[in-house]
Amino acid sequence: MTSHVLTLICPDRPGIVHGVCSALLEVGGNITDNAQYGDADTQLFCMRTVFDAETDDAEGIAARVAAELDDDRARLRVRPAARRPKVLVLVSQYDHCLEDLLYRWRNGMLPIDLAVIASNHPDLADHAARHDLPFHHLPVTPETRAQQEAAILDLVADHDIDLVVLARYMQILSDDLCDHLSGRAINIHHSFLPGFKGARPYHQAHERGVKLVGATAHFVTATLDEGPIIEQDVARVTHAHTPAELVELGQDTERRVLSRAVRWWAEDRVLLIGDRTVVFA
Amino acid sequence: MTSHVLTLICPDRPGIVHGVCSALLEVGGNITDNAQYGDADTQLFCMRTVFDAETDDAEGIAARVAAELDDDRARLRVRPAARRPKVLVLVSQYDHCLEDLLYRWRNGMLPIDLAVIASNHPDLADHAARHDLPFHHLPVTPETRAQQEAAILDLVADHDIDLVVLARYMQILSDDLCDHLSGRAINIHHSFLPGFKGARPYHQAHERGVKLVGATAHFVTATLDEGPIIEQDVARVTHAHTPAELVELGQDTERRVLSRAVRWWAEDRVLLIGDRTVVFA
Amino acid sequence: MTSHVLTLICPDRPGIVHGVCSALLEVGGNITDNAQYGDADTQLFCMRTVFDAETDDAEGIAARVAAELDDDRARLRVRPAARRPKVLVLVSQYDHCLEDLLYRWRNGMLPIDLAVIASNHPDLADHAARHDLPFHHLPVTPETRAQQEAAILDLVADHDIDLVVLARYMQILSDDLCDHLSGRAINIHHSFLPGFKGARPYHQAHERGVKLVGATAHFVTATLDEGPIIEQDVARVTHAHTPAELVELGQDTERRVLSRAVRWWAEDRVLLIGDRTVVFA
Amino acid sequence: MTSHVLTLICPDRPGIVHGVCSALLEVGGNITDNAQYGDADTQLFCMRTVFDAETDDAEGIAARVAAELDDDRARLRVRPAARRPKVLVLVSQYDHCLEDLLYRWRNGMLPIDLAVIASNHPDLADHAARHDLPFHHLPVTPETRAQQEAAILDLVADHDIDLVVLARYMQILSDDLCDHLSGRAINIHHSFLPGFKGARPYHQAHERGVKLVGATAHFVTATLDEGPIIEQDVARVTHAHTPAELVELGQDTERRVLSRAVRWWAEDRVLLIGDRTVVFA
Repeated sequence: MTSHVLTLICPDRPGIVHGVCSALLEVGGNITDNAQYGDADTQLFCMRTVFDAETDDAEGIAARVAAELDDDRARLRVRPAARRPKVLVLVSQYDHCLEDLLYRWRNGMLPIDLAVIASNHPDLADHAARHDLPFHHLPVTPETRAQQEAAILDLVADHDIDLVVLARYMQILSDDLCDHLSGRAINIHHSFLPGFKGARPYHQAHERGVKLVGATAHFVTATLDEGPIIEQDVARVTHAHTPAELVELGQDTERRVLSRAVRWWAEDRVLLIGDRTVVFA
Repeated sequence: MTSHVLTLICPDRPGIVHGVCSALLEVGGNITDNAQYGDADTQLFCMRTVFDAETDDAEGIAARVAAELDDDRARLRVRPAARRPKVLVLVSQYDHCLEDLLYRWRNGMLPIDLAVIASNHPDLADHAARHDLPFHHLPVTPETRAQQEAAILDLVADHDIDLVVLARYMQILSDDLCDHLSGRAINIHHSFLPGFKGARPYHQAHERGVKLVGATAHFVTATLDEGPIIEQDVARVTHAHTPAELVELGQDTERRVLSRAVRWWAEDRVLLIGDRTVVFA
Repeated sequence: MTSHVLTLICPDRPGIVHGVCSALLEVGGNITDNAQYGDADTQLFCMRTVFDAETDDAEGIAARVAAELDDDRARLRVRPAARRPKVLVLVSQYDHCLEDLLYRWRNGMLPIDLAVIASNHPDLADHAARHDLPFHHLPVTPETRAQQEAAILDLVADHDIDLVVLARYMQILSDDLCDHLSGRAINIHHSFLPGFKGARPYHQAHERGVKLVGATAHFVTATLDEGPIIEQDVARVTHAHTPAELVELGQDTERRVLSRAVRWWAEDRVLLIGDRTVVFA
Repeated sequence: MTSHVLTLICPDRPGIVHGVCSALLEVGGNITDNAQYGDADTQLFCMRTVFDAETDDAEGIAARVAAELDDDRARLRVRPAARRPKVLVLVSQYDHCLEDLLYRWRNGMLPIDLAVIASNHPDLADHAARHDLPFHHLPVTPETRAQQEAAILDLVADHDIDLVVLARYMQILSDDLCDHLSGRAINIHHSFLPGFKGARPYHQAHERGVKLVGATAHFVTATLDEGPIIEQDVARVTHAHTPAELVELGQDTERRVLSRAVRWWAEDRVLLIGDRTVVFA
């Protein structure tokens, strides 16, 4: 028996679950986990189903489900649960998120195939070397951005990358690259109540005396730091925390939030409907 | 269209979801929310489905689903979502949990029909009166426990009670009463790491310098404070908290945890398998 | 012996603590709790000291400490710990924060003297009546705002009010009133990551798929919702929470955050330096 | 100017703070941070003061303060803030806590001097090598425990160790070793509500359907897992978490809690009074 994960987003109507189940029954499928959500705003139906089947022909199963649903607006996907998404990690100079991803990946806590690391700085090459991972130093200037982004896309193509993780990659992606990676690039960003514009946000947060610092993992979109939110968390702080201590607590929160978001994405738990995510955590 | 909630626990096998969906399709049902869980330990399949149907004949729908499943070990239930469970609240002298339940109930946040309050003390009669609720003072001594519990059971019968909430009811129920109310009585209990036996637990917690105080909502069973856990939470404390302040923070946690547990039960989100709960929160 | 609370904010220099302690020793004072913080940004020193003294002449003690410090920039205050601040609560139509304040006040958890309630709506008069508190209905239109605010100030004067709590008071105070109540008016406000401008913030939060909803208690200033932050907290939410459920969870967070802020203020734990608070919680 | 940290525990009486301040003033000391706590149960006064002084003679300052206090029951310590405690880490086969300590230490987030690692297993030697740290494999059997513990004490002596961190060291220390390391050995332990005795606690937790898993960092004492608590935290879990996932979440909590405890100890924020800690966090 082979375990598969099916995800489906389609306009809501009676009979969808029945149709999916009928198709799965035909391949001897046994559902082991199932989550569904009908969104009142968009009238979209979202479904994530894990099932064991006698066949390992994921595409064949998907075709059968699609035939049963007979709705060309349905976004449907079936993949073997054991197939891990291939991941490119983009970094700059901070290593806290990268370290956390490497640790969890190496210890079997992140169901991904971490394939390659790229950076606009050379600083973190050793981290890659320590784990026998290819590291690409792709420096960038305003003039060379187009070429640099083409190099990133080459990596995506060469390594057959499913997911790009911006693990504190301190560059704004072009609209083109954002569109190209739509739904398969995750960024991590600090978050505050209230939000702060401009440079040195932790210093601003300190000056405003915030009592919480947070982080948000979101899909990358052309609108900077405004992509669909996947996960958020916060840590408590007090007046006595220096800006440096706020940074440290913020980084702890960032790495925790990013690794959760990557894991959920890798397990097909994150479905995108418009500007929102449905997360079957 | 009438919204219904279906809950199902049965031995796992292929075709269960398909069977349920087939039966629901026959009554024109449209699934709006669905959660499932297959428990590896017990090989039990748990399901909670919210659906709109053209009929309001919940029992008819249940019969149809049961026929489709054809498994007499299945525990199946269908009820109109608008039908609120009738609740008896048992209290002693502390009012923090009762106040919270009353507030949420009165403001439409708890989908219950709070029918009656009973207590082994007269102290909280005013709380009932303020909300025009019947209040029964049922004093108890070791000698009169059997009669007093019979009076509780009379209230359960007279008011057609679905759920008994022990909102800091400081009496141990007899094994008979626990069995009688199995799966439909919820208690709230303080919780500590480590746990403390004996009297004045908050004082013991203070003396041990715990950094967290917590609360656990659980089903009432004959094994005191050991019933299946429905919900838990904690609050941070420091060395500077006095025992009285620990009590206060603990009570805040208790009322938050209890109201969540009651709400989830009332929405049929709490399924019981052996000594554990599945909570589709 | 009488317990006193001393608070002090003054430019930092060697000898401040020594000076305070010398003065307290002279009145037989024994320090039972003490917290200090030197702010690197402003070079201000903040101190909160609880001490037992043989005298109950708080003003005499303050004069002695002031003489010892000999710095006219020092903001110094000594008050008997048993003297509770008199509080005016302003509300509109939501009662969740008011209910929580009333409950805690009545049960001895909030060391305040809740003196009077005022509202621009009549709806919550019963809440006041139930606790034998005066309730003033002070309706307001754009034309009558000056008179209405004058009526609020009359209440402050008549009841000798120390603290004004805006417990979901849905009116913007004039700059004049803000200035007049500077440092002694606390507001509660929902908070999101990211923040949302404009109407129906919980609906916007739902549409953006936030994973946290929060609340911020802050001092009232002429800059709307931007006053110095006293306390913040959040609750986790998912895609499945409706806007109504977000509101409910947000309100739970609001009342918890507001009552903490009021308590800390009432215990002289909140010191204001510029746009930030120092909270000796 | 040299920054120093003073810690003091002594029987409470008027004049202690004054005495300390007088002595500090004499050496031109300027207090930058100060926390105090008077414990009602034990009548002990606890104090942690950070101050800048013109001298770097910590022992001279301590002698001056001691002379001023004139109480031989006072436990007093003054050390230069820049002097980092030397740390021995004991591990077995799990590396999650060790990795976290190494990461934070290497990135300047833990003010310790990580001097040496020892283990009863050879598995984690590479972790030490990667950071050029000495690693001692000290295997142990019931018969060789005395010699093995002597070897540990040799490491403590040879490296002038201030703190021993048991970062998932799966051996019970003898009473003698516990006594020898009293107040300077920290252990990390999983924690549950309720607690579980015996083997495979995460499996037991899964079977009981707990909704929280936690961790406790505590001082090592002869009473296993019952030493004075330094820090605790929890993570939320659901019925759907497998025992393996509970372990992973538990380990995340363990490393977070342990690193906080070690940091606080290293900053002299953890004071021990009887079986409790006072943590000036």
